[in-house]
Amino acid sequence: MTARFQPVDPQFETRVRASFGRQRAMAFIGATLGRVEAGRVDIDLPFREELTQQKGYVHGGIVGMIADTACGYAAYSLMPATASLVTVEYKINILNAGRGTLVARGEVVKAGRTLTVARAEVYSQEGAHVATMQQTLMMLANTADTPE
Amino acid sequence: MTARFQPVDPQFETRVRASFGRQRAMAFIGATLGRVEAGRVDIDLPFREELTQQKGYVHGGIVGMIADTACGYAAYSLMPATASLVTVEYKINILNAGRGTLVARGEVVKAGRTLTVARAEVYSQEGAHVATMQQTLMMLANTADTPE
Amino acid sequence: MTARFQPVDPQFETRVRASFGRQRAMAFIGATLGRVEAGRVDIDLPFREELTQQKGYVHGGIVGMIADTACGYAAYSLMPATASLVTVEYKINILNAGRGTLVARGEVVKAGRTLTVARAEVYSQEGAHVATMQQTLMMLANTADTPE
Amino acid sequence: MTARFQPVDPQFETRVRASFGRQRAMAFIGATLGRVEAGRVDIDLPFREELTQQKGYVHGGIVGMIADTACGYAAYSLMPATASLVTVEYKINILNAGRGTLVARGEVVKAGRTLTVARAEVYSQEGAHVATMQQTLMMLANTADTPE
Repeated sequence: MTARFQPVDPQFETRVRASFGRQRAMAFIGATLGRVEAGRVDIDLPFREELTQQKGYVHGGIVGMIADTACGYAAYSLMPATASLVTVEYKINILNAGRGTLVARGEVVKAGRTLTVARAEVYSQEGAHVATMQQTLMMLANTADTPE
Repeated sequence: MTARFQPVDPQFETRVRASFGRQRAMAFIGATLGRVEAGRVDIDLPFREELTQQKGYVHGGIVGMIADTACGYAAYSLMPATASLVTVEYKINILNAGRGTLVARGEVVKAGRTLTVARAEVYSQEGAHVATMQQTLMMLANTADTPE
Repeated sequence: MTARFQPVDPQFETRVRASFGRQRAMAFIGATLGRVEAGRVDIDLPFREELTQQKGYVHGGIVGMIADTACGYAAYSLMPATASLVTVEYKINILNAGRGTLVARGEVVKAGRTLTVARAEVYSQEGAHVATMQQTLMMLANTADTPE
Repeated sequence: MTARFQPVDPQFETRVRASFGRQRAMAFIGATLGRVEAGRVDIDLPFREELTQQKGYVHGGIVGMIADTACGYAAYSLMPATASLVTVEYKINILNAGRGTLVARGEVVKAGRTLTVARAEVYSQEGAHVATMQQTLMMLANTADTPE
């Protein structure tokens, strides 16, 4: 069902891991990069009390953060080495309470010239389907993926 | 243009502030509760390096977190004291890079019997319109807003 | 990957087809019901000049209509015979221009007690992926699926 | 509250009305163009039985069509005469049943170089708030707004 993608940059995995390593926010919440394939990226998030909302579940915004990042790097994996990207928008449905350790699996749906559409599914360790996200990203050609 | 809302619980502000105080994730990122009115809640987020993405701006997921929370408490302010609520879904457009301190202004669009629709606008200290969110929440009648 | 669903109403197909038959708007645009399974429904839309926008493609709103309806009946197929449902919200990405005859394939992602989340993919006859939708629906228990 | 926009094409109203006139789908459902200002466009939709769903209300997809079109022309009004645009995505919440004649009021939230974000509110004749939409559009520079 899923389209396979040909990366234009054969070093995409190194590039994705380096960019993720510059995301202070990911280190801050304790998220780590799992599988990195062309058009598919997983983000792992071990459970921590600091990430919870008032009922003790992982905050919906934190669930959104890892889904957003998984979509973003799935898209980034297919881009030329000289490009960077920005998130245009995303929509997320929270399907079940986020209990325990989570994984966000991002996948490109369509890689266009300028815009990429991606999707992410978030699952808990116990196998619950925690959230589903649909996202749009825009490539910035010839723009460094580092602070200005 | 904006409809005014009549809170069913006159103690709504106390209730909103207590619930926000139980959100470990908000304290973790350094967010604080600003204005709390019936159907309108602001969340302030001072800039911190830990919240940035690879280009040095506030992470889009963090922007989503404060917008999500502002919508949620705007909705919660209008609910009976015995109810809790869950986020059903949200959609956010990132309009400008999140530089510096941010504020998310949440506002109820429609408070239904079961579902509430809310909106949030995120602005930077310099006045840039950073993001706009549209959200759906569901009331859980007679359910405690605390860990099970 | 897709969860299988057990319909609570064994006559779900008859019920879905009868409800679709009452949708004047579907007949008006020439849409017909294709496959009806528990949690999965297809809507076919033959090309007609009347459905186009200013560039001659099928109007994005028409694409949204058949995706919306495919999601709705996928959800409705899993509901008790005594319930009706309303669309809470949907989000659609237009991936490619809608050329020629289209099919919208709706599928339930999660069937909750009150809310159902569904997804639809719209394809053209030539195999292009025209659109992807994520939708939330609410069940109205003991409510007739007919005019009041 | 709303930003005012300066149109780059002083003939924007003529251009919007001509493009709308080429939308076969709008004529088909009986929609007409109301107010056209820089960054703001209204679409009127008189009630017709052909536009209803199974319960006799205006079909949610039809509500989406006029909101989509109102956002699109609000965006188009601010573009250069030589550009056309495509809808990237939209998200709509249905707030109340669509009874009787409807109006969709589209308004630009942010007009970027490539992407525009717009919003639409749909109201019924009786004043009910029927729907709220958030939309992303992409400008295609130097591209005719007519069939290829």
